Amino acid sequence: MPGTRRTPTQERGQVTQDAIVEGAATVFDRIGYGNASLSMIAEASGISQGSMYFHFKSKEQIALAVIHEQHDRSMPLMARVSEQYGGVLERLIRVSRAIVDQLENDPVVRAGIRLTLDEGSLSQPAGAFYEEWISGTAAQLDVALQAGDLVSSMSAPDLARTLIGFFTGVQLTAQATAGRSDIAASVDRMWRLAIDAIVPETLRAAATRVREDAFGAPGDVRPTRPAASM
Amino acid sequence: MPGTRRTPTQERGQVTQDAIVEGAATVFDRIGYGNASLSMIAEASGISQGSMYFHFKSKEQIALAVIHEQHDRSMPLMARVSEQYGGVLERLIRVSRAIVDQLENDPVVRAGIRLTLDEGSLSQPAGAFYEEWISGTAAQLDVALQAGDLVSSMSAPDLARTLIGFFTGVQLTAQATAGRSDIAASVDRMWRLAIDAIVPETLRAAATRVREDAFGAPGDVRPTRPAASM
Repeated sequence: MPGTRRTPTQERGQVTQDAIVEGAATVFDRIGYGNASLSMIAEASGISQGSMYFHFKSKEQIALAVIHEQHDRSMPLMARVSEQYGGVLERLIRVSRAIVDQLENDPVVRAGIRLTLDEGSLSQPAGAFYEEWISGTAAQLDVALQAGDLVSSMSAPDLARTLIGFFTGVQLTAQATAGRSDIAASVDRMWRLAIDAIVPETLRAAATRVREDAFGAPGDVRPTRPAASM
Repeated sequence: MPGTRRTPTQERGQVTQDAIVEGAATVFDRIGYGNASLSMIAEASGISQGSMYFHFKSKEQIALAVIHEQHDRSMPLMARVSEQYGGVLERLIRVSRAIVDQLENDPVVRAGIRLTLDEGSLSQPAGAFYEEWISGTAAQLDVALQAGDLVSSMSAPDLARTLIGFFTGVQLTAQATAGRSDIAASVDRMWRLAIDAIVPETLRAAATRVREDAFGAPGDVRPTRPAASM
């Protein structure tokens, strides 16, 4: 931004780092971690390789910064959407819809999740985001299971791990088989199955209304978008 | 095998190709497609780079051969296990257990599934295996839904796509977060949720017995293995 006054070094450094993370995310998202080269990342970032090397010593450091940034974008979004709604199931459904929107619109989020699952490419285990997500979800599910709003033969932590694995799988296979346009429809189908499994029959109609409001009722031309999308 | 008489060229060519596919699979499985180099694949295969180049012109051709080989190993296994059992749900549960065993024991299967999902790394869409798996599963589910052995508000193709996405997700997140030892337990939890969702209450105890027989009852030191493992 020409003409804007800055406290020079630090702020400019942050701007450069952000540009590298954004550029790297588009490259990782498009071709995967292993195929990405530092020169491709520099080009996508609009940053010289010399300047990039000043901030990051390796491709792995850049990838960890992308994962960190994805975490920083997804976790507050999840918290923000969650606090807008009352019931546990509605929170989970609305949060999943918001993440679908992030996946569809933000290469940093797509790249971060992809890097997290790309076991073996990064020498450092990158499952911390998942574990945090699982434990947060488990705490919510525990409340709902104890109140009888949800029912399951599984413990809250097992149910949380299973639902998050489910979510990850349907969005990933949607991308691998049908292109990204199918992600929302796939997550909607996930909730159909999950509602049948964990919602007591007396509450099922209400849960279905929430699902349809978040993902679009059958026959809608396209799913409605929650205002909470980033 | 020294001393074995062969029809020389073709058969030797096949042996070399098989070695390359096996070697490449261990490399792809360990470090991913993009990180793998032709020299690493040659070394893992015990084949010279010159000989490798005679069979495959690029890393992508090798990866497609791995996917093809995974397909050739998984599909007949699924068919073989499936025909040993009567009910549709039992078939699906037993097949999933057999695939878990393949995933745990065969790098070609792990690498093939990983490459299939590694959208962007391969220029050619690799979702054909998934679509075939989904349509085969849908045909079975359709029979069970029509007979009332299973219940769902979803159509058989939607339910098939959802269950296979579920399976993919739980085994993938198990690998990314807890190491491969957790795959069987994750797929077992998947079936707990799915049984609650799609099995009528009168049949649920029987379905649970099948699940426990395939994956081990709670309290077992380790899950029992079906004889059908490759």
